[in-house]
Amino acid sequence: MSELRIIGLQGFPEVHPGDDLARHILHTLARNHLTLEDGDIVVVTQKVVSKAEGRLVRLAEVVPSPFAETVAAQWGRDARQIEVVLREARRIVRMDRGLIIAETHHGFICANAGVDASNVGEAGVVTLLPRDPDASAAALRAALQAETGKDVGVIISDTFGRPWRAGLTDVAIGVAGFLPIDDYRGRPDAYGHPLRVTAVAVADELAAAAELAAGKATAIPVVLVRGYCAPRGEGNARMLIRSAAEDLFR
Amino acid sequence: MSELRIIGLQGFPEVHPGDDLARHILHTLARNHLTLEDGDIVVVTQKVVSKAEGRLVRLAEVVPSPFAETVAAQWGRDARQIEVVLREARRIVRMDRGLIIAETHHGFICANAGVDASNVGEAGVVTLLPRDPDASAAALRAALQAETGKDVGVIISDTFGRPWRAGLTDVAIGVAGFLPIDDYRGRPDAYGHPLRVTAVAVADELAAAAELAAGKATAIPVVLVRGYCAPRGEGNARMLIRSAAEDLFR
Repeated sequence: MSELRIIGLQGFPEVHPGDDLARHILHTLARNHLTLEDGDIVVVTQKVVSKAEGRLVRLAEVVPSPFAETVAAQWGRDARQIEVVLREARRIVRMDRGLIIAETHHGFICANAGVDASNVGEAGVVTLLPRDPDASAAALRAALQAETGKDVGVIISDTFGRPWRAGLTDVAIGVAGFLPIDDYRGRPDAYGHPLRVTAVAVADELAAAAELAAGKATAIPVVLVRGYCAPRGEGNARMLIRSAAEDLFR
Repeated sequence: MSELRIIGLQGFPEVHPGDDLARHILHTLARNHLTLEDGDIVVVTQKVVSKAEGRLVRLAEVVPSPFAETVAAQWGRDARQIEVVLREARRIVRMDRGLIIAETHHGFICANAGVDASNVGEAGVVTLLPRDPDASAAALRAALQAETGKDVGVIISDTFGRPWRAGLTDVAIGVAGFLPIDDYRGRPDAYGHPLRVTAVAVADELAAAAELAAGKATAIPVVLVRGYCAPRGEGNARMLIRSAAEDLFR
């Protein structure tokens, strides 16, 4: 029997710019009668990382460009919010039916280039994705390790849509401490035949699993995954971005 | 603290056409010192469902069409396998670089229309997706309930690629006993503001979580998820197929 535990931590505090997330996580773990163990994976939603890093924009301070005004007028959206989306994007993948699917400066393809108004707590304020979510994950991992001596993995997660399938799932936008893809190619299958093409995006599966313990309407931004033996190596979430050369759906 | 347990069941037997999967699952649970509880979700990989349902094709018995021969010749692939893929498809979404991304008769968009040669156990044999994975899931759920009296959810999972992001993740191709999408629209966020557009594909997240306890190279085709409070209702995996009208990426 192989077992994973997906543990949503209750009572995470409200996060403000400049906050020490590692300290919040360790306090919240203690409040949940937990201590970190080697091999644990800490999954943190993008929203609290963005807040701690001050990645907040007050729409009242945004002057929309003429193009943002044009787009907003077509779909009855807020031109200032469109402006923020355009600033976070390096490429528009689709702009249709009031939706903007954009490639962010990091290379993630997602709705509104990751700009989000939900769960912010203040009207007229939106969050941006962390500037470098892999660096955010690595810094958090280092801080947790410095404080506890434990070797843990860290995922920064966000909620993305996908073509073809309805509904959203959580994926990893920042990774530290393990390889986000478990590459089975060449390894034998259960019958001893070599597997040909299976490389599993385990960091995305971990983010998805964590979402199940967090939920969208609840205030559980940090989830602990215990018992998963992650692929060892120096990983990051850029490894989860399919290269243009290998992507049939650019 | 909200906690899910993702339990991979050891010792699942080799599956043959006509096998009673519910019986195999209950025996394997017993061998793992587990009994089903109300609210458990049983995640079964497509491969064993297809085998039990006899969805196997011996390539030696397949006569490829001229088009299958043409495609196979371009990429150095087996024309008989291409022929099986074409028979399982109702639409080709992309055919490029030796890959066929197809829409199956069920409406799933995936590589090779779900035709797979790995983990089959016999050279020259491929598996097809179950003819109606939702019906497979419903039948399994009914059989488990008849035997144990417990109200469980069932997911038939398969491993799909996705545009833009590297690596594969497990998704749900059959669902019974719960709603595969948790629709938060209109519900308040953690600050009391209504969430606007979040509908989470929890069945896919459950399938992904199960994959972490199963792995690709191991013989763990059945995973138990315990402690997840699934959205109540009569659900199926067709609900996870984005309608053409709502899909910007057909």
